[in-house]
Amino acid sequence: MLGLMQEWPLLCHKLIDNAERQHGGREIVSRSIEGPIVRTTYADIHRRARQVAQRLEQDGFGLGDRIATLAWNTARHIEAWYGIMGIGAIYHTLNPRLFPEQIAWIMSNAGDKGIFVDLTFVPLLEKIAGSVPSLRKVIVLTDQAHMPRTTLPGAVAYEEWLAEADGAFAWRTFDENTAAGMCYTSGTTGDPKGVLYSHRSNVLHAMIAAMPDAMGISARDVVLPVVPMFHANAWGLAQSTPMVGAKLVMPGCKMDGASIYELLDSEKVTFSAAVPTVWMMLLQYLEETGNMLPNLRKVVIGGAACPRAVISKYQDKYGVEVVHAWGMTEMSPLGTLCTMKPQYETLEGEARLDAQCKQGYAPFGVEMKVTDDDDKALPWDGHTFGRLKVRGPAVARAYYGGAGAEQFDAEGWFDTGDVAHIDAGGYMQITDRAKDVIKSGGEWISTIDLENLAVGHPDVAEAAAIGVQHSKWGERPLLVVVRKPGKEPSRDEILDFMRGKVAKWWMPDDVAFVAEIPHTATGKIQKTTLRQQFRDYRLPTD
Amino acid sequence: MLGLMQEWPLLCHKLIDNAERQHGGREIVSRSIEGPIVRTTYADIHRRARQVAQRLEQDGFGLGDRIATLAWNTARHIEAWYGIMGIGAIYHTLNPRLFPEQIAWIMSNAGDKGIFVDLTFVPLLEKIAGSVPSLRKVIVLTDQAHMPRTTLPGAVAYEEWLAEADGAFAWRTFDENTAAGMCYTSGTTGDPKGVLYSHRSNVLHAMIAAMPDAMGISARDVVLPVVPMFHANAWGLAQSTPMVGAKLVMPGCKMDGASIYELLDSEKVTFSAAVPTVWMMLLQYLEETGNMLPNLRKVVIGGAACPRAVISKYQDKYGVEVVHAWGMTEMSPLGTLCTMKPQYETLEGEARLDAQCKQGYAPFGVEMKVTDDDDKALPWDGHTFGRLKVRGPAVARAYYGGAGAEQFDAEGWFDTGDVAHIDAGGYMQITDRAKDVIKSGGEWISTIDLENLAVGHPDVAEAAAIGVQHSKWGERPLLVVVRKPGKEPSRDEILDFMRGKVAKWWMPDDVAFVAEIPHTATGKIQKTTLRQQFRDYRLPTD
Repeated sequence: MLGLMQEWPLLCHKLIDNAERQHGGREIVSRSIEGPIVRTTYADIHRRARQVAQRLEQDGFGLGDRIATLAWNTARHIEAWYGIMGIGAIYHTLNPRLFPEQIAWIMSNAGDKGIFVDLTFVPLLEKIAGSVPSLRKVIVLTDQAHMPRTTLPGAVAYEEWLAEADGAFAWRTFDENTAAGMCYTSGTTGDPKGVLYSHRSNVLHAMIAAMPDAMGISARDVVLPVVPMFHANAWGLAQSTPMVGAKLVMPGCKMDGASIYELLDSEKVTFSAAVPTVWMMLLQYLEETGNMLPNLRKVVIGGAACPRAVISKYQDKYGVEVVHAWGMTEMSPLGTLCTMKPQYETLEGEARLDAQCKQGYAPFGVEMKVTDDDDKALPWDGHTFGRLKVRGPAVARAYYGGAGAEQFDAEGWFDTGDVAHIDAGGYMQITDRAKDVIKSGGEWISTIDLENLAVGHPDVAEAAAIGVQHSKWGERPLLVVVRKPGKEPSRDEILDFMRGKVAKWWMPDDVAFVAEIPHTATGKIQKTTLRQQFRDYRLPTD
Repeated sequence: MLGLMQEWPLLCHKLIDNAERQHGGREIVSRSIEGPIVRTTYADIHRRARQVAQRLEQDGFGLGDRIATLAWNTARHIEAWYGIMGIGAIYHTLNPRLFPEQIAWIMSNAGDKGIFVDLTFVPLLEKIAGSVPSLRKVIVLTDQAHMPRTTLPGAVAYEEWLAEADGAFAWRTFDENTAAGMCYTSGTTGDPKGVLYSHRSNVLHAMIAAMPDAMGISARDVVLPVVPMFHANAWGLAQSTPMVGAKLVMPGCKMDGASIYELLDSEKVTFSAAVPTVWMMLLQYLEETGNMLPNLRKVVIGGAACPRAVISKYQDKYGVEVVHAWGMTEMSPLGTLCTMKPQYETLEGEARLDAQCKQGYAPFGVEMKVTDDDDKALPWDGHTFGRLKVRGPAVARAYYGGAGAEQFDAEGWFDTGDVAHIDAGGYMQITDRAKDVIKSGGEWISTIDLENLAVGHPDVAEAAAIGVQHSKWGERPLLVVVRKPGKEPSRDEILDFMRGKVAKWWMPDDVAFVAEIPHTATGKIQKTTLRQQFRDYRLPTD
């Protein structure tokens, strides 16, 4: 027997309809790409998003069309998203930090037919537009007065293009499982893979994200999403902020400490979210200027593990609650948030920081487990680690075009590629990437733990642990070390320093000293290169 | 094009699965019907709910079966709900405050096959069981030691019945639109009508209810739902509390001031919800004993308009935030909550109370409008009132068996039967019931406004405004007044007192003095009886 409740499909335009109806006068403040701070409201955005939708239909776009955005966080970018979704087309966010040929590959793979592009990225798009055969419309997010000379064929200025629609438009309706958005993962190996969000997954994710124990944002908040809309849906903030009617502050293209501080201060921002780098830049600015953060209530930090000192400084000196979080593009992106359960709430000082350095627990709507190589679930004991697998209504079940099928199993679990443990309280901590973990005699050794331990030695500048072939154990750990300038710690000094602090069988079989460890563009250790470099290394134990 | 996100149906058992996985050790404290305070946990409830499910299947129950509950708020009642839902059967809450023959009619109409009944209600069930032909299983929510002598055929004690299932059971899965729960509205006219909740509507409602601007409950809260589970789903708290992992305190059958205070104090309750009567009884107890409420953070008051003095006393003297709310059984039940938008947040004193006396605004997931007799939407200006209509994923689209079809329109709007206005900020205030409003020359007059005004006269004990036939205007207002003992205010004194405080054409055409105004069992004025009584009244203006 079915229930007798209303059919009310979870469609994204209902988020912005609600913002207009209940919070129409609430401001959206953007640092525009042209320079000045621009103020608009949810009522304005709602009206203009319907104009975008209507105008796109006039240009022949419709259900299922992929329309790219190559843009910073601004009100216009939000309007574009809702306008695109409102006709059943798909916003496809492009990450401008990728190489131009990667962006061209992604656009071609997605079959993007149109693009909304910020002034900043017109030169970038000029380089690649010719290699995207599907592209037939370029809309530059500015007005005619600021329109640059461009080689892009038929490029139009957003404001004048928009003015050709009168806004007499009703959102199209369709199944809630219709695709709404698209974002490619920047895989460290292989081609990027497309994640295809649905209206239903976006709306449920917005609700999950706004919950008191997740981001916990309310109509009284002023939200500054520093995390870009092209980075995993701006962690859902472009949806959950309108949903609750909070004031929205958009940083445009300036994310340095001074610019972020200016917005935090002038707009009385109460909530923000960004990667650790942003918070470190802001911290440096605050220390230099002596400025404080009287309005800022809470920040969510994710995208990479947040250094303990950053968490502690924001909380102790600036009175800002820090919520460490973890997610993935494939998860819309929220996975876990380190808000406090009652048993952690009472912790103080270092014990509290220990808890906060974990990535947190999964809210309702995210299921997780850690498994061994045989896909057997491992205990939640805070130390047994395995592959982290997740499930939920805002988690991908496949990549666009069927790529990466091996990451999804029959029961619906998605293999994150991360290695983690979960404690008895449900708090998860990432310990490694699955491809980096060292497998010694069938047991796993976490390279991150070994590295964190090694850099505790006063003479070690940087350390990387990698697995090296071993005839008996399969693999054994080799520690690669960069010494601090003028220091000469020996192999045995470093190993002695580590001994007793990890299980005996985790101890590196050898230490190799190098002048430099290779890094990716985002500052992560390039383990693949390092493993290649030490491919023929002969361990003394072998 | 469809999105590529996981199919993860919104099923109620996922709420309790999440509670077990993430908050397994969190307590549920119940005042048991046998007497003592009983402690259990989400892990226990999860295990026992699966036993209920398994044991029900052993008894031949399955998908679509209606299984009644006639019980107070206790952990066992929660287990029964989740066990029933876990096999795709339907929990059907019965309101023990109805007349026995009404309960029998409702059970027969629903076709209830089984019932979980509290010790308190065994005598009541004995009276009616014989007139419910579908009923074939009675489970008394107690153990063998407390089992009463009963004439109920084959009645079993819950604990011993449950012990016959080993708990090796996996939740059944089915479409998320499958019926999960049932509750009949106690209509003031006509037969009660059944509302049939689905798994999807229950889960979405739990999410809507927990949001920061709705109830705003977190894992750190201790929640005491005084509002009974048989009263419109306990306002969703039986679902949203496990969802967030808050500690749950269940009051059993004792809802007097002393008993409620005892639980608030001993369990350090931070959040509670109940009808105004409960808060008035508690207030009286606090005033008598001098006790305070140091842990209680917030209360939600709904079910009837909350007196201004009650809101003010809880906030000013006891430091408890009061959230006025409105809902209906047909809405799962949440409709509006009077949490503060930023423009209201800064109000103080009487201006803040003015705002808080409104029923509040609709969260995302509830749409509302007020319409005139031609179904034209009226402006949100804070005074133009009309029929209140609502729409949303947790709002009914029909009653069980097709009763009351005239309350639902083709666009999915449900006519609440209430008359209300909505202000520019989105805050709704109920001004009347549609059947009570006075229609004078095509315009509407709110009887509640006239009554509130009239009782402001120092010599008036109670007042009721009703429409009386008028040859020119159709209807005109008659004010029916009960004088205070020993006072003799005249017709003209009362009208003079009211003049200038309402629109001239709202002024009653006459005043009739009576010794007593008829009331319903729940204390509301019986307008139907009163209109009958004054059916032939001749107004002096006619």
